[in-house]
Amino acid sequence: MMKEKKNRPSPSRREQSSQEGWNSGRTQPSGMQREDIVIGRNGVLELLKSGRAVESILLASGDHQGSIPRIAAMAKEAGIPVKEASPAKLDSMCGRQNHQGVIAITGAAAYAELEDIYKKAGDSPLFVIIADDITDPHNLGAIIRTAEAAGAHGIIIPKRGGVGLTVTVAKTSAGAVEHLPVVRVPNLAATVEQLKKQGVWVYGTDMEGQCWCEIDYTGPVALVVGSEGKGMSRLLTEKCDFIASLPMYGEVGSLNASVAAGIVMYEIARQRANIRAR
Amino acid sequence: MMKEKKNRPSPSRREQSSQEGWNSGRTQPSGMQREDIVIGRNGVLELLKSGRAVESILLASGDHQGSIPRIAAMAKEAGIPVKEASPAKLDSMCGRQNHQGVIAITGAAAYAELEDIYKKAGDSPLFVIIADDITDPHNLGAIIRTAEAAGAHGIIIPKRGGVGLTVTVAKTSAGAVEHLPVVRVPNLAATVEQLKKQGVWVYGTDMEGQCWCEIDYTGPVALVVGSEGKGMSRLLTEKCDFIASLPMYGEVGSLNASVAAGIVMYEIARQRANIRAR
Repeated sequence: MMKEKKNRPSPSRREQSSQEGWNSGRTQPSGMQREDIVIGRNGVLELLKSGRAVESILLASGDHQGSIPRIAAMAKEAGIPVKEASPAKLDSMCGRQNHQGVIAITGAAAYAELEDIYKKAGDSPLFVIIADDITDPHNLGAIIRTAEAAGAHGIIIPKRGGVGLTVTVAKTSAGAVEHLPVVRVPNLAATVEQLKKQGVWVYGTDMEGQCWCEIDYTGPVALVVGSEGKGMSRLLTEKCDFIASLPMYGEVGSLNASVAAGIVMYEIARQRANIRAR
Repeated sequence: MMKEKKNRPSPSRREQSSQEGWNSGRTQPSGMQREDIVIGRNGVLELLKSGRAVESILLASGDHQGSIPRIAAMAKEAGIPVKEASPAKLDSMCGRQNHQGVIAITGAAAYAELEDIYKKAGDSPLFVIIADDITDPHNLGAIIRTAEAAGAHGIIIPKRGGVGLTVTVAKTSAGAVEHLPVVRVPNLAATVEQLKKQGVWVYGTDMEGQCWCEIDYTGPVALVVGSEGKGMSRLLTEKCDFIASLPMYGEVGSLNASVAAGIVMYEIARQRANIRAR
């Protein structure tokens, strides 16, 4: 399976030795969620030049001197989100090291291309999950894990807005990120349009829809999973061919995003495997 | 629904003012998982006398002087787990306050009695979840949230071994802990025996079993959810009338505990609501 995935180019030995401030996040204080990070201006500049996957760039607010504007410009050109945070926040992320006003958060696994998802599907009807702005790494990890187990062919996430393939996501996926192509696209709505043109049916999950197990999922399926707080975006909701709903028999109005996604994914898996429910 | 739950007695005003070291955990450093804690020997002693729910007692290893042995004995008598940790661990939990070698972790919600679960079921066939040693508070919270939404009548957890109703569990349950009775029992196996004598069918979840959606769940149901790492204990597995399995179509061998539980709970809900699957 790994062969199907595009490998992220890793910096050569010479590059690595010249990169002041490279840091794998091992010196962070315990108790924090650990991500792979690169600390300091030179390290982050080299990282951006190397082409390695970068989740986001964190700038200390107010400190925009030296090479910081260049870093911000390069990141923006590469479509990498640039966020500002207090210098104290940056301090807390890198222990006693001098961050010089900038930290980059790198990915824990390589992203794949849409082509890899089609390859994995082969002759089977496509089964792909579209994660719309999932911000909790535990949720995205659990969604990837369940998707892989349910026989999905890949996951599509947005370049901006949700969490990416961080260390926590990879860990929570229990290794599924190594087997399932995860593709990052600049515009989810455009990708959904593209899938629809190729004959894929688009299913959303929301409160106001058809009962989840009464819908036919036996054709090519793209399942849109909404974010934890807001659900699916209006734009994506409008593009759905079907909206699947889970009945709520109690007082709480919704389920955890990864649990709701899991229930619908296993209904899809059941129908595709032609398992008869009682 | 709250009326059905046993309220935890809260200490009187006089008691509170005499309790040096009472602390609701608000001064903990940010970035840590916050639990309600009580710090220091006098505070913990008063807490144990008050009868309030206590999740566990943490003792600094090596420091067993003064009233510490008395605290340990009282906790053991009340069936409260006593753990040892490094003094540095205790320091990190309570900021700059002097913990005097002891911290108590208190609950965030009240526990109910088995009777409350039967009351909630009323004339419907019982639907109860037994969470066997779930240690991740996010998992237990999500299980409680899904159980409440799926129409379960209560959750049974062990007094020792798993996580209790901590602040994180309550938060992750999205308020479901306020609507669903959560009962803590000293011995899960004995409780399962008791349920079986009352005509409840016991269902487990494991790798080697029947396909989850081919099993009949329309009678009184107790669903045993195994722990994250180990699954169900051997003793509980042997007591199950049915073992439900989810097919794994990929490379990963298992699902997140709360996702797996959610999929089976919604199959139970579907059959009980007589919703016809395609």
